[in-house]
Amino acid sequence: MAKITAVSPLAPEAFPKMPIIDGVSFSTVAAGVKYEGRADVMLAKLAPGTAVAGVFTQSATRSAPVLDCQRKLGGPTPDGAAILVNSGNSNAFTGRNGLDAVARIVSASARACDLPEARVFTASTGVIGEPLPFERITDRLETLAATLDPAAMEAAASAIMTTDTFAKGATASVEVAGETVSIAGIAKGSGMIAPDMATMLVYIFTDGKIDQANLQTLVAAHNENTFNCITVDSDTSTSDSLLVCATGASGVAVDDSQTFSDALHGVMQELAHLVVKDGEGATKFVEITVTGAASDRDAKTHALSVANSPLVKTAIAGEDPNWGRVVMAIGKSGAPADRDRLSINFGDIMVAKEGWVNPDYVEADAAAHMKGQNIRIHADIGLGSGEATVWTCDLTHGYIEINADYRS
Amino acid sequence: MAKITAVSPLAPEAFPKMPIIDGVSFSTVAAGVKYEGRADVMLAKLAPGTAVAGVFTQSATRSAPVLDCQRKLGGPTPDGAAILVNSGNSNAFTGRNGLDAVARIVSASARACDLPEARVFTASTGVIGEPLPFERITDRLETLAATLDPAAMEAAASAIMTTDTFAKGATASVEVAGETVSIAGIAKGSGMIAPDMATMLVYIFTDGKIDQANLQTLVAAHNENTFNCITVDSDTSTSDSLLVCATGASGVAVDDSQTFSDALHGVMQELAHLVVKDGEGATKFVEITVTGAASDRDAKTHALSVANSPLVKTAIAGEDPNWGRVVMAIGKSGAPADRDRLSINFGDIMVAKEGWVNPDYVEADAAAHMKGQNIRIHADIGLGSGEATVWTCDLTHGYIEINADYRS
Repeated sequence: MAKITAVSPLAPEAFPKMPIIDGVSFSTVAAGVKYEGRADVMLAKLAPGTAVAGVFTQSATRSAPVLDCQRKLGGPTPDGAAILVNSGNSNAFTGRNGLDAVARIVSASARACDLPEARVFTASTGVIGEPLPFERITDRLETLAATLDPAAMEAAASAIMTTDTFAKGATASVEVAGETVSIAGIAKGSGMIAPDMATMLVYIFTDGKIDQANLQTLVAAHNENTFNCITVDSDTSTSDSLLVCATGASGVAVDDSQTFSDALHGVMQELAHLVVKDGEGATKFVEITVTGAASDRDAKTHALSVANSPLVKTAIAGEDPNWGRVVMAIGKSGAPADRDRLSINFGDIMVAKEGWVNPDYVEADAAAHMKGQNIRIHADIGLGSGEATVWTCDLTHGYIEINADYRS
Repeated sequence: MAKITAVSPLAPEAFPKMPIIDGVSFSTVAAGVKYEGRADVMLAKLAPGTAVAGVFTQSATRSAPVLDCQRKLGGPTPDGAAILVNSGNSNAFTGRNGLDAVARIVSASARACDLPEARVFTASTGVIGEPLPFERITDRLETLAATLDPAAMEAAASAIMTTDTFAKGATASVEVAGETVSIAGIAKGSGMIAPDMATMLVYIFTDGKIDQANLQTLVAAHNENTFNCITVDSDTSTSDSLLVCATGASGVAVDDSQTFSDALHGVMQELAHLVVKDGEGATKFVEITVTGAASDRDAKTHALSVANSPLVKTAIAGEDPNWGRVVMAIGKSGAPADRDRLSINFGDIMVAKEGWVNPDYVEADAAAHMKGQNIRIHADIGLGSGEATVWTCDLTHGYIEINADYRS
């Protein structure tokens, strides 16, 4: 395990002040799953009737907890629910033992929280392929259940970190029908991040009241242009999980509220950006927008090809406005493009248009943009009206340092 | 341009001793296209009746010289031919000027070599998006034509290098119908290397006599499991070109010779391996074999997903037998896999079988394999009989160093 000695330069100044979400409480414990001397297990307990929606990794080798959660989602229920997450070991590719570990953790959580097993959602994040010492977790469940606190969301965000350098939270409050509805979420993730979904765990809570099926539809739609539009290293985790839990404790129905939908989207986008900002070794936050593609899908294909290109990402690390590499990445993406219709901007500087360097282009202008911490690249394909925006970070020595000896 | 100060640790001890291929001669010159004080243009002249076959990048933004070559391939002809290559500038994404530059170089080459323009094949490799100062090349064509030498193939291999740290050559001689047929080829490429095709230039010459259509079929088939099975960084060049030229000067017909086909395959595979061994920053040569996939195509999808995974490549750099990351890469590839049927070997060590760590596995054994320079990873998917082998290198600080300031 590499020592992470510095907080990402892209980290926000502080964890946001989180509201209490009525109907949710948190506890954490240092169970020694792998890490020493830090909290590594979190429990979130949800009030009766909470609607739980979710999206998970599409990996063909997804982890045992992911398979268990996927089975449990859906349908209205009067029951409460619980989320139990450990860091340090992902319980992925652990064969039959992996399923057994999940069953044991679910059973102990259900007992400690007085819930049916079908309402316990678990996740594990960390090293793949090593047996999860589940007794270290089940032994602490009574303690976790006895120390639940509605104000402990920041501690929960810290307990689920692995190579993360800062805890990630985002929140929003909106007025719906004259009443306040709050949303607050936490996330972890900084490596093995790529769409479908980005490699991470995300838990978002709201006191809005919404039908489970409606919440699922909303979460799936927002996921497509938030978490599925970020990439750090093109590697997809076997454990990606996003759960959104609506306790309904505010009594405010938000099923048809555009305001609520927008606020939820905002929280999801903010958490997605924070994951990129904690990308392993990241020193630049990069927004890549593609317009003028033949379709939105093609635009996203181009944008992700640029975002995942090691040559583009190293050029950004080197503060080099190397638009040739952007052309290369669009060319290789597989989606239609025409060399002589391409235009490329770095920040507000148009560097190339119609297949050739912009005659007004002064490299020093683009170079100045590249020295900033927030880099914007815009490519117009010139073929249609398809659009997409994705987010990534640069590829630096820090990434190599962290990953060349993560496990050994 | 980053200074490349060291030769790849994976380089062969010496450039091979190349045979004279009757009907081919070479010359080089220091034209100052971009680099100072080194040869950066090469000319190869081919005898009348030479069959020329080729394969090119599939990039949607392919360079002007590639488009020109693709137009010219095919059909029998009594004419000779010429290949003119410069390094330092790729003449890619250079708009109408790019086509003009190609036309000027083709015209001057045809005149200097007394050939029709339709038989002049050009290539340019180096920076994308900057105008090619073609006069520096056309000014030297008379000199190049006057200094042709059948023994100058090694100099030609050096002249086409960009970030390469060593010149690449491979050769084979075979007996066909009791006569000797020789094959010899050169290649360049060390970054922006990924299938379809790998980013590079390759020129192979033989004195065998073969119909152009038959040669094209042979080259396309061998390309699929040689150059299209290597990757350094998943980035695909806009300039990839492979030409195979059969002068027929030996008088030996090789159209139906399996021996010739095998020898050509061997030269192509050797050159493909040399490109990987000069991968930017490479310290390990990695062979990834996938068996048991539902189809050969699926096997290649899995193998390339492993080969392109930054997390797998950094683990190899760290000499860490991190088979969890191999599982992750297979899971994300998009091709079918079943977690609980996967088996994974590092070298001869079976680390995992049927979704779980091999009970006989001793990590020190796999770790010992990882300390070598030649790493073998074998994944059996357990679903069918599809197979593929691909080659890559590790991802190190050297890659970041070279690419974070290649252009600035």
